[in-house]
Amino acid sequence: MSLDVVIMAAGKGTRMKSARPKVLHPLAGRPLLQHVLETGIGLGAERLITVTGHGAEQVEQAMRRALPEAPLAFVRQEPQLGTGHAVQQAVPELPESGTTLILNGDVPLVKAETAKALIQACAGERLVLLTVVLADPTGYGRIVREGEAVRAIVEHKDATPEQRQIREGYTGMMAAPTAHLKRWLARLSNDNAQKEYYLTDIVAMAVADGVPVVATQATGETEVLGVNSPVQLADLERRFQREQAERLMEAGVRLMDPARFDLRGTLRTGRDVAIDVNCVFEGSVELGDDVQIGANCVIRNARIAAGAVIHPFTCIDGEAAGAEVGEGALVGPFARLRPGARLGREVHIGNFVEVKNSTLADGAKANHLAYLGDATVGERVNYGAGSITANYDGANKHRTVIENDVHIGSNCVLVAPITVGAGATVGGGSTITKNVGAGELAVARGKQIGIGGWARPVKAKK
Amino acid sequence: MSLDVVIMAAGKGTRMKSARPKVLHPLAGRPLLQHVLETGIGLGAERLITVTGHGAEQVEQAMRRALPEAPLAFVRQEPQLGTGHAVQQAVPELPESGTTLILNGDVPLVKAETAKALIQACAGERLVLLTVVLADPTGYGRIVREGEAVRAIVEHKDATPEQRQIREGYTGMMAAPTAHLKRWLARLSNDNAQKEYYLTDIVAMAVADGVPVVATQATGETEVLGVNSPVQLADLERRFQREQAERLMEAGVRLMDPARFDLRGTLRTGRDVAIDVNCVFEGSVELGDDVQIGANCVIRNARIAAGAVIHPFTCIDGEAAGAEVGEGALVGPFARLRPGARLGREVHIGNFVEVKNSTLADGAKANHLAYLGDATVGERVNYGAGSITANYDGANKHRTVIENDVHIGSNCVLVAPITVGAGATVGGGSTITKNVGAGELAVARGKQIGIGGWARPVKAKK
Amino acid sequence: MSLDVVIMAAGKGTRMKSARPKVLHPLAGRPLLQHVLETGIGLGAERLITVTGHGAEQVEQAMRRALPEAPLAFVRQEPQLGTGHAVQQAVPELPESGTTLILNGDVPLVKAETAKALIQACAGERLVLLTVVLADPTGYGRIVREGEAVRAIVEHKDATPEQRQIREGYTGMMAAPTAHLKRWLARLSNDNAQKEYYLTDIVAMAVADGVPVVATQATGETEVLGVNSPVQLADLERRFQREQAERLMEAGVRLMDPARFDLRGTLRTGRDVAIDVNCVFEGSVELGDDVQIGANCVIRNARIAAGAVIHPFTCIDGEAAGAEVGEGALVGPFARLRPGARLGREVHIGNFVEVKNSTLADGAKANHLAYLGDATVGERVNYGAGSITANYDGANKHRTVIENDVHIGSNCVLVAPITVGAGATVGGGSTITKNVGAGELAVARGKQIGIGGWARPVKAKK
Repeated sequence: MSLDVVIMAAGKGTRMKSARPKVLHPLAGRPLLQHVLETGIGLGAERLITVTGHGAEQVEQAMRRALPEAPLAFVRQEPQLGTGHAVQQAVPELPESGTTLILNGDVPLVKAETAKALIQACAGERLVLLTVVLADPTGYGRIVREGEAVRAIVEHKDATPEQRQIREGYTGMMAAPTAHLKRWLARLSNDNAQKEYYLTDIVAMAVADGVPVVATQATGETEVLGVNSPVQLADLERRFQREQAERLMEAGVRLMDPARFDLRGTLRTGRDVAIDVNCVFEGSVELGDDVQIGANCVIRNARIAAGAVIHPFTCIDGEAAGAEVGEGALVGPFARLRPGARLGREVHIGNFVEVKNSTLADGAKANHLAYLGDATVGERVNYGAGSITANYDGANKHRTVIENDVHIGSNCVLVAPITVGAGATVGGGSTITKNVGAGELAVARGKQIGIGGWARPVKAKK
Repeated sequence: MSLDVVIMAAGKGTRMKSARPKVLHPLAGRPLLQHVLETGIGLGAERLITVTGHGAEQVEQAMRRALPEAPLAFVRQEPQLGTGHAVQQAVPELPESGTTLILNGDVPLVKAETAKALIQACAGERLVLLTVVLADPTGYGRIVREGEAVRAIVEHKDATPEQRQIREGYTGMMAAPTAHLKRWLARLSNDNAQKEYYLTDIVAMAVADGVPVVATQATGETEVLGVNSPVQLADLERRFQREQAERLMEAGVRLMDPARFDLRGTLRTGRDVAIDVNCVFEGSVELGDDVQIGANCVIRNARIAAGAVIHPFTCIDGEAAGAEVGEGALVGPFARLRPGARLGREVHIGNFVEVKNSTLADGAKANHLAYLGDATVGERVNYGAGSITANYDGANKHRTVIENDVHIGSNCVLVAPITVGAGATVGGGSTITKNVGAGELAVARGKQIGIGGWARPVKAKK
Repeated sequence: MSLDVVIMAAGKGTRMKSARPKVLHPLAGRPLLQHVLETGIGLGAERLITVTGHGAEQVEQAMRRALPEAPLAFVRQEPQLGTGHAVQQAVPELPESGTTLILNGDVPLVKAETAKALIQACAGERLVLLTVVLADPTGYGRIVREGEAVRAIVEHKDATPEQRQIREGYTGMMAAPTAHLKRWLARLSNDNAQKEYYLTDIVAMAVADGVPVVATQATGETEVLGVNSPVQLADLERRFQREQAERLMEAGVRLMDPARFDLRGTLRTGRDVAIDVNCVFEGSVELGDDVQIGANCVIRNARIAAGAVIHPFTCIDGEAAGAEVGEGALVGPFARLRPGARLGREVHIGNFVEVKNSTLADGAKANHLAYLGDATVGERVNYGAGSITANYDGANKHRTVIENDVHIGSNCVLVAPITVGAGATVGGGSTITKNVGAGELAVARGKQIGIGGWARPVKAKK
């Protein structure tokens, strides 16, 4: 039986005070709507029909780019005449049968398990409301039951004092047999004070039609919280981060402070991984067994192999190309790895060192104040403090090749394209513009002269 | 009708365990007392009379320096014989009529709106107490009312069991008709166990005189909390930071974690500004539309124009001179901008780069491990990795001028004063001591020689 | 009367999901078990008998290494047949008389004062249980009393509804007269569903023997919490850090955010020390009067003298050799001090500067992008931006001596071993390989040549 998902995402989000459509605001690095779409994808939905309105084109483009393979469809709701009107726009995209799950584009954390429970409870023949039990349900429509069956959703403002005692509220999400849903949507009226079409009016229709109406309760408040303001977004961000942190800890990861941990993407971890305070992970990151991440690291799109130690204040951003740190490597503090940095086993990258689009073979070291860009560095190379690969001539990038066992002195410039042969040595302070043969010592420096009795400049009078 | 403010600031603050007078301890970067004085200034007070005692001179100097234009007056309370005695010291400074507002120098967050409500309720003829309703008012003097009117303040220790049920407590702040106040102060007695003069004794005098005594309630606990210890100071700091964070979010700023945000000064923000975790802002900072601030940045006295991206681990301190980042510029990670750094549009400042008292015109780049001090850098200049402006000869600072479209190679030294003409190129590893003409290639390096079969040093036996 | 401590540390800790024995997981930088052993040492215990099991050898080695002077003994419990069985293994190590205190290796924060109270209550003749009063004692064995005397510990699952109302629970820790304890342990039986030997069975034996059984209550929950999972470990870490933060604040230290402070070791502080957000201290750190530590610093094994200012993003790791910062010195931002860095008074170490195994005398400065390794730097030396001590020839480390008042220009290389004499100047961009005499100007650079009309490389067509 086919599953279709309709996602309401037309709202303006005025309280966000942003030029960006609300559903494109990121939570944990991805737009709110994308979270919902990914949940739908995970459910194996046939179609993911997003009802857009404010910023429709921007929303559609962003989602098609983010999820190019997903069965996305978009329908426009203009003007916006209520939740029922929103879902009505999706009707032409819906099949004749199966189940339709209705979600909200600004309620990003609804769980797949919860959605599955809704769909199962629907079973193609029941209307299923997602509800939540809250200590204080003020503002929520209350679920009026008769035994298990739901009789009505009563808006907070219309509720009697007894009904206000009900702690089960409607979350705005539901699953319905598609055929029934289409019939009910066609009968919605806007004969009310706001002149809007309310989706919740279908509950009465279902009851009148003798279609069972039931409720599935959310596992907690977080998964049904919507985002209407930056304060709510920040609150949900922290709840989500806390949940992610707990999931990682339950898998054995040691977090020094779960309240100071941010993951915006996916983090795969081996055994006995320890992550110190205030680290941020983005994109796709893998950490092998026994990896230690020091305080205040920012790591994006990277693979860090077993036993590597990332010292504090390390910034790794592999972007699309990725960055790799080999087994037992030591990186940082104050190191930066950029796209295409690939470090072999036991490589050492020290403070104030930048590596971009460069391969360092096993045991190579660049410990201090250095730049390695577009370089291929052999095994056991010692790359001196302050040395630079001059990979850019102002127009094109060129490659530097440093073969095994080379020793590059301090404050050298290697003007690419260039090759320093195996076992060669480059004297400190040399600017190397021609290839260096294997085993050679290359030096390019001025002769040292001493001038006695030299008078230092003196402080100018002002 | 004139408004005068008396601020009690004589206390020692023994529990602060500090050599610094308590009211000079900073909250959000400014002394406690300064917060109170600034509130008074905002109210348009005629005189701000601070009653000092412990560390009086230090307090007076610090405040005169911080608020040179404010109508500050200082009176000394020595020895310190109670709150009534403190206010008595201010009497010679007070005019004959108008309203006197009495605040505490260690209660920094009292809101202007609350103070205004006190003054309005006073209307030159009523004694108005600032009170607060608390779940647990233990320790507070309780407000005994008769209808709206206040009959008495009963100290916690003197309160009957019923009076202890009263949840409205006195905050230590009040507004009084100045003429009445002076009269009452003159009648205060220290005929009590502590031999102190209590300001609260004037309540009974007002009641006896038939002057109405009313209460205005604070909007919450935070604005009436005093600081007596570092723990309380830290607590208040976090409350204040949380409030600031919420105010910014309500204005549309996106904070990744409101609990990891510090603002010690003023932050003006455009639309769609996003601030990642653990950033600190000090002094006066402006962020234009769409500015993104990465994790772990510390930014002080700076203007960052629309669309600029500040990557993680960036330290900007404009001090008095200020620092400016142009539209669409990219800065960091691990960048440092110092006073007088002025970056044009689309300028790139990369990792391990320091810029001080230097202007970089549109499109200029210094991407790696470099120092630009006292430099004027033209449009589209590419300033190579590891290059340094040698602006200091050990006695004086000199200026480096790099004209448009210059390409400076890697690890160069530009010995100031010097000019590199438009479109010139400086070869990597060059120390440039003479001006370079427009369009020229300047090189200053030793000739590269190769020595075959060179024997590396071997590890010394130990 | 002798005190012996038995510590149960044999458990596997399956929920830790770690290859490391549970009691070796660190809390605040030291293994859980080490915290307990140090508490025992502080109590003046005759013997500290640890009952090991899972990872026994690893545990024993780690503790012997961490506490080489302590009277450690280890006994093995294999297989693990319950708490009573664990303590039975210690019997051969226990003397005939005195008091035995039984602690848990995974309950790291039990306070010395609490342990002392247990021992005193025991007085060589009573069985004393450490209990805790909790709002929700679910899961805890309940303490059934008759007046002051304890009659029984009833397991949660065996408790009657009334007994479940008891809020006093057993913590797993106790003190017992050693002679009695040995007798009771010998009589334990495993005649129960789990076929285990329960230590708590000795309560009934004591009651039967007429030995008084009493309870001492813990001062709070934190000191009796055990660690069974990474989530619990992180929770305990934060509780411990919060306690440490409060203790420091009570001593007068100003913490900008007690929730963003980590101390993993000992921190000695002078007066008016201020520590900004998100700092981490490890090992043994001393901060003198008026020291200011900026945001995001990581400091390990260091002594920082009065009045020094450590700017944000400073990383100091003295390891075993220690690192020292002199009075009034300024360090950072983005500075790194490594083992053996010893800075005199008023030394300035600026951004992107690394100092290792080097002494800088009073007033020396290295403000930008520099490396000082194995160097002795005199008073008032100005060490230029980008300059490097080439201390490593690929095989051995050599020393650089820079005497008083030397001025080293920018981007220099000092090839060690080398001495630059007092008052000498080294021109920018020089690679210095020979000693420089006092007062000399040494220069080693290529002559600057200018090539007019030079054609820049152009972007290659792709």
